[in-house]
Amino acid sequence: MKNYQLKRLPGILLFAAATIMFLAGPLAADEGMWTLDNMPLKQLKEKYGFEPSPAWLEHIRLASVRVGDGGSGSFVSPSGLVLTNHHVALGQLQKVSTPQKNYVADGFYAPTLADEIPCPDLELNVLISMENVTARVLASVKKGMGPAKALEAKKAAIAEIERLSLKKTGLRSDVVSLYQGGEYWLYRYKKYTDVKLVFAPEQQAAFYGGDPDNFTYPRHDLDMAIFRAYEKGKPAKVAHYLKWSANGAADGELVFVSGHPGSTNRLMTLAQIEFQRDLSYPTRIQSLKRSLNTLRQYASRGPEEARQAAGMIFGMENGLKVSSGEYDGLKAAGIIEKKAVQEAEFRKLVAANPEWQAEYGSAWDDIAKAIEAQKTRMKELSYRRVPGIRLGGIALQVVQMAAELQKPDGQRLDGFHTSQLESLRFRLFSPAPVYPRLEEVMAVDSMKLMIEMLGADDPYVKACLDNKTPEEAAKALLAGTQLADPRLHKQLVDGGPSAVAKSTDSFIVLARKLDPLVRELNKWKEDSIESVTRPAGEKIGQARFAAYGKNAYPDATFTLRLSYGAVKGYPMNGTLAPYKTTFYGLYDRAISFDNKFPFHLPKRVAYARDKIDLSTPLNFVCTGDIIGGNSGSPVVNAAGELVGLVFDGNVESFIGRFFYDDTANRTVSVCSQAMIEAMNKIYGAEALAKEILGEK
Amino acid sequence: MKNYQLKRLPGILLFAAATIMFLAGPLAADEGMWTLDNMPLKQLKEKYGFEPSPAWLEHIRLASVRVGDGGSGSFVSPSGLVLTNHHVALGQLQKVSTPQKNYVADGFYAPTLADEIPCPDLELNVLISMENVTARVLASVKKGMGPAKALEAKKAAIAEIERLSLKKTGLRSDVVSLYQGGEYWLYRYKKYTDVKLVFAPEQQAAFYGGDPDNFTYPRHDLDMAIFRAYEKGKPAKVAHYLKWSANGAADGELVFVSGHPGSTNRLMTLAQIEFQRDLSYPTRIQSLKRSLNTLRQYASRGPEEARQAAGMIFGMENGLKVSSGEYDGLKAAGIIEKKAVQEAEFRKLVAANPEWQAEYGSAWDDIAKAIEAQKTRMKELSYRRVPGIRLGGIALQVVQMAAELQKPDGQRLDGFHTSQLESLRFRLFSPAPVYPRLEEVMAVDSMKLMIEMLGADDPYVKACLDNKTPEEAAKALLAGTQLADPRLHKQLVDGGPSAVAKSTDSFIVLARKLDPLVRELNKWKEDSIESVTRPAGEKIGQARFAAYGKNAYPDATFTLRLSYGAVKGYPMNGTLAPYKTTFYGLYDRAISFDNKFPFHLPKRVAYARDKIDLSTPLNFVCTGDIIGGNSGSPVVNAAGELVGLVFDGNVESFIGRFFYDDTANRTVSVCSQAMIEAMNKIYGAEALAKEILGEK
Repeated sequence: MKNYQLKRLPGILLFAAATIMFLAGPLAADEGMWTLDNMPLKQLKEKYGFEPSPAWLEHIRLASVRVGDGGSGSFVSPSGLVLTNHHVALGQLQKVSTPQKNYVADGFYAPTLADEIPCPDLELNVLISMENVTARVLASVKKGMGPAKALEAKKAAIAEIERLSLKKTGLRSDVVSLYQGGEYWLYRYKKYTDVKLVFAPEQQAAFYGGDPDNFTYPRHDLDMAIFRAYEKGKPAKVAHYLKWSANGAADGELVFVSGHPGSTNRLMTLAQIEFQRDLSYPTRIQSLKRSLNTLRQYASRGPEEARQAAGMIFGMENGLKVSSGEYDGLKAAGIIEKKAVQEAEFRKLVAANPEWQAEYGSAWDDIAKAIEAQKTRMKELSYRRVPGIRLGGIALQVVQMAAELQKPDGQRLDGFHTSQLESLRFRLFSPAPVYPRLEEVMAVDSMKLMIEMLGADDPYVKACLDNKTPEEAAKALLAGTQLADPRLHKQLVDGGPSAVAKSTDSFIVLARKLDPLVRELNKWKEDSIESVTRPAGEKIGQARFAAYGKNAYPDATFTLRLSYGAVKGYPMNGTLAPYKTTFYGLYDRAISFDNKFPFHLPKRVAYARDKIDLSTPLNFVCTGDIIGGNSGSPVVNAAGELVGLVFDGNVESFIGRFFYDDTANRTVSVCSQAMIEAMNKIYGAEALAKEILGEK
Repeated sequence: MKNYQLKRLPGILLFAAATIMFLAGPLAADEGMWTLDNMPLKQLKEKYGFEPSPAWLEHIRLASVRVGDGGSGSFVSPSGLVLTNHHVALGQLQKVSTPQKNYVADGFYAPTLADEIPCPDLELNVLISMENVTARVLASVKKGMGPAKALEAKKAAIAEIERLSLKKTGLRSDVVSLYQGGEYWLYRYKKYTDVKLVFAPEQQAAFYGGDPDNFTYPRHDLDMAIFRAYEKGKPAKVAHYLKWSANGAADGELVFVSGHPGSTNRLMTLAQIEFQRDLSYPTRIQSLKRSLNTLRQYASRGPEEARQAAGMIFGMENGLKVSSGEYDGLKAAGIIEKKAVQEAEFRKLVAANPEWQAEYGSAWDDIAKAIEAQKTRMKELSYRRVPGIRLGGIALQVVQMAAELQKPDGQRLDGFHTSQLESLRFRLFSPAPVYPRLEEVMAVDSMKLMIEMLGADDPYVKACLDNKTPEEAAKALLAGTQLADPRLHKQLVDGGPSAVAKSTDSFIVLARKLDPLVRELNKWKEDSIESVTRPAGEKIGQARFAAYGKNAYPDATFTLRLSYGAVKGYPMNGTLAPYKTTFYGLYDRAISFDNKFPFHLPKRVAYARDKIDLSTPLNFVCTGDIIGGNSGSPVVNAAGELVGLVFDGNVESFIGRFFYDDTANRTVSVCSQAMIEAMNKIYGAEALAKEILGEK
């Protein structure tokens, strides 16, 4: 479950209509990514005979961790140990690796605190409190305001709420729009930025089966990594952490997944879904294929190039598999038809009530019209890229940040509000390495793509090329920049607009030219599209409340959610997929492919064959409803014990972005028993296993 | 690959249009079930660099064995050992089992010749010679004969050729219609009827994963059984047998499958395929579900009932999975459209040549018209059943045989020609057990179905019911019959029509009433349907010769064919299926399902875990083109060594009845290494393993 990685791909303007969607219709079994204030207690009690208490929910919430800008995790010891996925930790593993010490390929284990490695830019967030601020946000909208003004007013109100909360509590404070703006909640987070790496297996053990096995099941991955949160230079003392289950989950058992699903589109309108199918996905898939091809060529130059590109390749293969899977799902027989029936029923219900019809009835057609408008600038929205991997994006952020900080909070671009600055600075000033050759190759590629798709006369493309060929332009950009040094980022931001204006750094010069074009396109999108689709989405959300009540969950927003379901196999490929796999299956798969890439066993795993109890459960599936961003989520049983670690969904879950159907949609997790067995028998990490099991 | 079992279900008038079909269009890679006189030597040489010599082909042919009336096998020792599938041997295993000794559940091994158990009615056939008799058959058709007369003349000519050959050589002699009557060949077989059981594992090891895993892959089955052919009371000395490969097949290796595919419909016309999709399959599937349900209820009464019904249940589950798979395949997006395009191209080619058009052009429309005619009596064709499992069918055969033997060979019903009599007698006079309760239950069920579908006034149904309820009628039938004793069958046949006419046996009395109705329907079908579709099919076959030449293979006819292909994994369920599985995978699957039915391990297999080399390859897949009837076929390498034992196709191969596509269509086989490992380490059959490896 890694499609959050998509978000990280710099230079790609991802077009996600995700946040304005909402769920309609009666709930299927085990469906839902629930906010913790609105758990389906009745359904749980009826179906599973278990009703989580407020204290139980609070404990799970405070033991849950949001990891970086796209993953999940959990505290698993009173001394700040955080369990997440290897693929969530991958960026940090790369950043702390060197040509001499490749922790991605070889794994890592710190037997003592002194051996733990500080992470350059990993932020952990724990959701401390949740407050409904809907009334305060909506009060900012005055009668007679047009849609654009209303949107602006709400944005300003949200920024103000966040600013005041930060000032008052010192906590990271985010206002979250739920139910398409049906509700606004203030979420406050305790933040950890002093985080160290404790343990990671080899990537080949964590991501066993590679791209082919990714998003499939039966599976045999040790997709785990362990960090430790520090406070004031010492291991953080955490009151709420998950006890580790030595027995794991049984067939049919009720389990919960606590994590941060990134985005879903469960209540896109028919027009939006068709837009996704006909334009968004084909564009995205084509772009990803192209970038991936370029990256693979770069990686084939040698081992060091391969190491540099590994994380990006991983992310893109992953993104491509997700996008292709979702796209195939949308094209599958009956899916769009199902959506059409659902929407027709909902609209009929609304139309039957004259008051509702007057208030909400136009929303669907408004969205359809906005989508038509969007198509007029689709190419610019899809293909204007900041050249390179990291440097172009950094330059643009530096330029924009210097300007935005001059403005009152409420008028700033999204991403530069006061409450967001600390995390932004943390990322922007990170000492993570830059690979100039790789930057250059990718810059050439993105400029060539822009010429193809937008033409050499597009002002944005002209700015990038600067009257050169893509190859010359990229070479010049890389030759004329010092931005690989993060101290420069800080100097420029601190120096403000005048420092930025004076800079002769090639990437800053380019970013100064691109900035107005980016702002213009963003502004156009906001005024022409979002100012229509957001309020229309809100209306649909409100219609949903009116017609069905609040017995539903909002679309995913990368905020804490609890899913539930049963540990359960499913019908697959003519037979049954079992609820779990074992270490036997890992060795079977390796030998079945004659130990060839990507099914080869890492040496330590191969050597440990006779030490491991091969019948130990390795991975398992449950019906819990998840999506990208849930990676690293703990799976807990009714006793609140950790029985597993979410790392993926199966292929049948791709369509879950749009529809949930528990026939075959499954969450794939590492078994708690497998992690202990591996730490003890493969990696010599007995001390860590003891700490986790509370045996220290 | 077990759908040949369908043929064995008595009382079901299977409606197969199979034998009149033929292949059109250019060949896909590795496609084809080739007759040994017409191997694609050029393709083989070009693609695999191997051209089998005439001696190589002869050796494979003489080492190949047709097993019973629906399976394949091969000689694997100079002393008559025959390797086939457990599921092909299942009927014999049941017949030699008793309530005290359940060889199906427990397996069997004869360490010495004296321990081998004689099989009651197993016939093995080896193809000794092949002779093209097309000219002789076609010479029987005189100018001016109508279609019905022409068909009759050809049938008489065929019966005469068979009779003369049998008389001259003493060998079983079958004239086979290939290429929809484009060619007729006389195949002569050496027959073995003194056959003994030597070895079989437990059914649970042979059919591991049961109905769910059936027709899927990855797979973990030891689907093997070993017989020994005897001649004159001693183990048969066979000059041609396959040497056993201790190393099995490697990834990518060229392999051949030598066996007896039952039937394919690769050149059904569009009208015929639509008929299959819209009428044949739904009817068959509904009937199978119903019978299966009745059988399962019977089996649930107790262990003895379960034992009696096991073989039938196995066959029906299997048949249902095949029929459902083929039906789903036909309904899948694009399949019928593909067929339509193919047919349109072929017809266009024919129409472009005025001579061809005059000769063959009407064939497609003729078939379409015949299908419309067939629909008028579809219910009778589909639902008129002989009540019971075996007794009803035996009774009808006895009654018909006594009458047919009075006629000249050429005028007899199919199945009663001189050349067919010896095999018919062997089956009909078999001492295989009859289970009266099971007969009764199934008789009730078939009569109820007939009442539902045909109405109580249908003369056939009336004859069955004899003014009673289905329950009463079945009870009376079973109470009034002695047909469980095979000696009676012989007495009646030997006594001729007068003995049959005098019999008061309840089933014989019923069969006498049904016989004219069965004959009337058969005659109608022959005159109204087959006399049109057969010559039309022949025309299409001839058009194929004219347009494309003889660079193709005929549809399957349960005669010896050689397929070829590569050992090769395939894309599956979002990832890759490996080319082989191992014993590790067997234990993984068992534990993954908590050792629950049908994934539990037989005790001996569980106990042998530490003795077995778990990395031994267990099952593997290749692209060779097979279908039901190929079960038990040897897989041989270019050196002519046995590397595997075909036992199944994957789910992706179902559509292979109509189209071959090697993307994912795979033949599933037991690895030669696994069989030796199992004999030695699980079953204590070291002596047998030595004999097979030639180490004795």
